[in-house]
Amino acid sequence: MFPLFVYDPDDPRISAFRAVRERDLVGREGQFIAEGEVVLRMLIRSTRHKPKAVLIDGKRIEKLAALLSELPYDVPVYAGTQAVLDAIAGFHLHRGILAIAERGLQPTTVELLSTLSDNALVVVAIGIANHDNIGGIFRNAAAFGADAVLLDPESCDPFYRKAIRVSVGAVLSVPSARFLSNDELFEALGQGSFTPFALSPSGNLTLTELKPPARSAVLMGAEGPGLPAEVLARSTTVRISMAEGFDSLNVGTACGIVLHHLRSRPNC
Amino acid sequence: MFPLFVYDPDDPRISAFRAVRERDLVGREGQFIAEGEVVLRMLIRSTRHKPKAVLIDGKRIEKLAALLSELPYDVPVYAGTQAVLDAIAGFHLHRGILAIAERGLQPTTVELLSTLSDNALVVVAIGIANHDNIGGIFRNAAAFGADAVLLDPESCDPFYRKAIRVSVGAVLSVPSARFLSNDELFEALGQGSFTPFALSPSGNLTLTELKPPARSAVLMGAEGPGLPAEVLARSTTVRISMAEGFDSLNVGTACGIVLHHLRSRPNC
Repeated sequence: MFPLFVYDPDDPRISAFRAVRERDLVGREGQFIAEGEVVLRMLIRSTRHKPKAVLIDGKRIEKLAALLSELPYDVPVYAGTQAVLDAIAGFHLHRGILAIAERGLQPTTVELLSTLSDNALVVVAIGIANHDNIGGIFRNAAAFGADAVLLDPESCDPFYRKAIRVSVGAVLSVPSARFLSNDELFEALGQGSFTPFALSPSGNLTLTELKPPARSAVLMGAEGPGLPAEVLARSTTVRISMAEGFDSLNVGTACGIVLHHLRSRPNC
Repeated sequence: MFPLFVYDPDDPRISAFRAVRERDLVGREGQFIAEGEVVLRMLIRSTRHKPKAVLIDGKRIEKLAALLSELPYDVPVYAGTQAVLDAIAGFHLHRGILAIAERGLQPTTVELLSTLSDNALVVVAIGIANHDNIGGIFRNAAAFGADAVLLDPESCDPFYRKAIRVSVGAVLSVPSARFLSNDELFEALGQGSFTPFALSPSGNLTLTELKPPARSAVLMGAEGPGLPAEVLARSTTVRISMAEGFDSLNVGTACGIVLHHLRSRPNC
């Protein structure tokens, strides 16, 4: 790894890094941005996604040399001063590291489920349009060893820069797939013998009563509207017991509570 | 409740609402800002905190009339167009409601603990300097019926506007107190017969093994540094079991998982 020094924010070699926020909004057609050391490490070690170029603060090269040397030889590492980096990105890059990467091909929902183990656990996001919440769901999926995240058409893109950052890179390690309709979802779950558990404040079972079958899918809706009636009707509904008068948790927190229960059930 | 219409952002009657963000930074000396309908409702029904003035989008008066009529007669309600409101606040006020309120006197840690029940549960925040995380902790405390939140000197102010918003108003309903040193904390906990449980990735007990005594205190540190060694040494340490290679959760999520376990333990 020989860093290539960049002195001019308009250097055409680093044009892909320019105006990061504006491009976040229009999307990157199969590419994404990884920020910071933790996410870069997950990217470099990912078997699904490929780094294309790295841009770092020259002062960080020494500390990151070992990690950067794991990059394939044809991935350029550009280095600049903090001021040049900030001018390229269009905002203050306080983590001092950006990488551009190519997303691996996303499997279909049926394909993804068919690769999972006999006691697989998947999380299904329905209508979750907030990047913090999607990031939180992936982070919890990774923390508790869930095997995949499935997303409906209304849920936001987990490869959006902020969602990756909030997930602490888990978006790059937990496989995901997008389904296009509730029918596609429930057919795929049925085909794979996954039991759907829909989280709802008015669920029939409390979480602590839940003894999950071999393969489970946990369905989560957005705060406020929750899951659509049709989804609840096709699932076993589960609620998290709360104090009287309270019926709402942050969706990432609710996801963490459910996955923790399913993955580390007490010895009774 | 007779709304007073404001046409000029420089109207001296609403000067307390001006430049909200700049004043967030300098603090409000015993006052705080409540945003949005949900938080306003909790403020109006709070027995500890007092609304001083309300500023709303004139279009919302009709829908909010019942709630606003619960205000004490001497609390003025100012109404303006969205454009006037935005000019007063200094940013786009998409919730259309701001209130200024006076904080109730905060008890000392010892005083607060002495008011709690025999099976009380308190959360202790140590070094949590992020407003989202403090807001998340209060939200979870309210959701699972924790009785109080105690804060060390490094933890941020829960009455900061964003923390109140993220807590969905729980900052106004869950009592809190600030302690000034670990000695003060542990003496107060000892005096009240609270058993301190310190959350740590290297904790001795797993959460699911934890059978809490009558009065418990859950101690949470910041992501990254975690709790100081001295705090761990003076507590029973507890870990949340995670997938191999993972040892970190968002602190609000971790708090939710612990409180859920302590408040809704399975019938074994």
